[in-house]
Amino acid sequence: MAVIMEVSVVPLGTGSPSVSRYVAKCLEVVKDAGVAYQLTPMGTILEGELDELLSLVRRLHEVPFGAGAVRVVTTVKIDDRRDKAATMAGKVRAVEEKLES
Amino acid sequence: MAVIMEVSVVPLGTGSPSVSRYVAKCLEVVKDAGVAYQLTPMGTILEGELDELLSLVRRLHEVPFGAGAVRVVTTVKIDDRRDKAATMAGKVRAVEEKLES
Amino acid sequence: MAVIMEVSVVPLGTGSPSVSRYVAKCLEVVKDAGVAYQLTPMGTILEGELDELLSLVRRLHEVPFGAGAVRVVTTVKIDDRRDKAATMAGKVRAVEEKLES
Amino acid sequence: MAVIMEVSVVPLGTGSPSVSRYVAKCLEVVKDAGVAYQLTPMGTILEGELDELLSLVRRLHEVPFGAGAVRVVTTVKIDDRRDKAATMAGKVRAVEEKLES
Repeated sequence: MAVIMEVSVVPLGTGSPSVSRYVAKCLEVVKDAGVAYQLTPMGTILEGELDELLSLVRRLHEVPFGAGAVRVVTTVKIDDRRDKAATMAGKVRAVEEKLES
Repeated sequence: MAVIMEVSVVPLGTGSPSVSRYVAKCLEVVKDAGVAYQLTPMGTILEGELDELLSLVRRLHEVPFGAGAVRVVTTVKIDDRRDKAATMAGKVRAVEEKLES
Repeated sequence: MAVIMEVSVVPLGTGSPSVSRYVAKCLEVVKDAGVAYQLTPMGTILEGELDELLSLVRRLHEVPFGAGAVRVVTTVKIDDRRDKAATMAGKVRAVEEKLES
Repeated sequence: MAVIMEVSVVPLGTGSPSVSRYVAKCLEVVKDAGVAYQLTPMGTILEGELDELLSLVRRLHEVPFGAGAVRVVTTVKIDDRRDKAATMAGKVRAVEEKLES
């Protein structure tokens, strides 16, 4: 059963406040992994099997080090629901259906 | 200058693992506030003036209590960049432009 | 009734991977505010009235900008329980009492 | 080289706002793992080798399911610094040394 996971990988102490080049390198790793994902302005949301996603997080965490960073803060939030199948699209739809029209 | 903020408001100890009805009530408050927002599978992302958004967070945090919850965990991440204007769309675009094609 | 809040204020793009001097400046603001707090290796935990703490967070978020940073990411987690009084010490004690000896 | 990691494992929809019995079960798994840890009012902070800690997180995430929960939200923050050795005690000390006396 799939979990939904939000990941943010941020290098500290780089000389520039912009981190988009590191995020782009991470996103390429996500694309290569072939898992469902959604890039948001605050992180990347993944959908898939938990162990597969944790293994992907491990690789993503390494990306900024490979690009020269010496300190990386990675934040992961796992939403794992086992009473019914959960998907990224389904979670958003469940909220939108309950909006008062 | 605008900040980008991600907010998640979650009630604990309700009898059901589903929290979408609480999220929908929060989203109605966001819509009424008239700020730019994006609903994601893991939270809501807001764009606007910092003090306005913090005041909105304060109201969102109260929503599940008004719907019967007795414990609420609210998570807020503020991304505030003052060397250049930041927008939700601009942050995603900056990453996509750097992807190797 | 008091809430428990965890706060982390991190500058990006400072050129040095160390951020302890920014954290120390924040901690001085916390001390001056006179609220109960606990410094941990991953953030600062506060205990107090919600509006007072949110106002303090607003001031903490400004600290690295005052020290030269141009981008700051502030993360806040609010734990608000209204069925009984919650304290930092009480939360830890509730866990320790349930450990199998 | 060690990383510092903060972990929070929270069951949703349990019917009771108290989650300390789940946290206690997690803490027993942490103790059995033999890694350095610090229980805080908002989570558990771990210090150790990254892969070992990720494997521990995977086991911690499973604990509330084993105790009857059907939905679990696990949050992990990894602070990984490779330019110098980092410890939980050293991070707190670095801040306290910079406080104006």
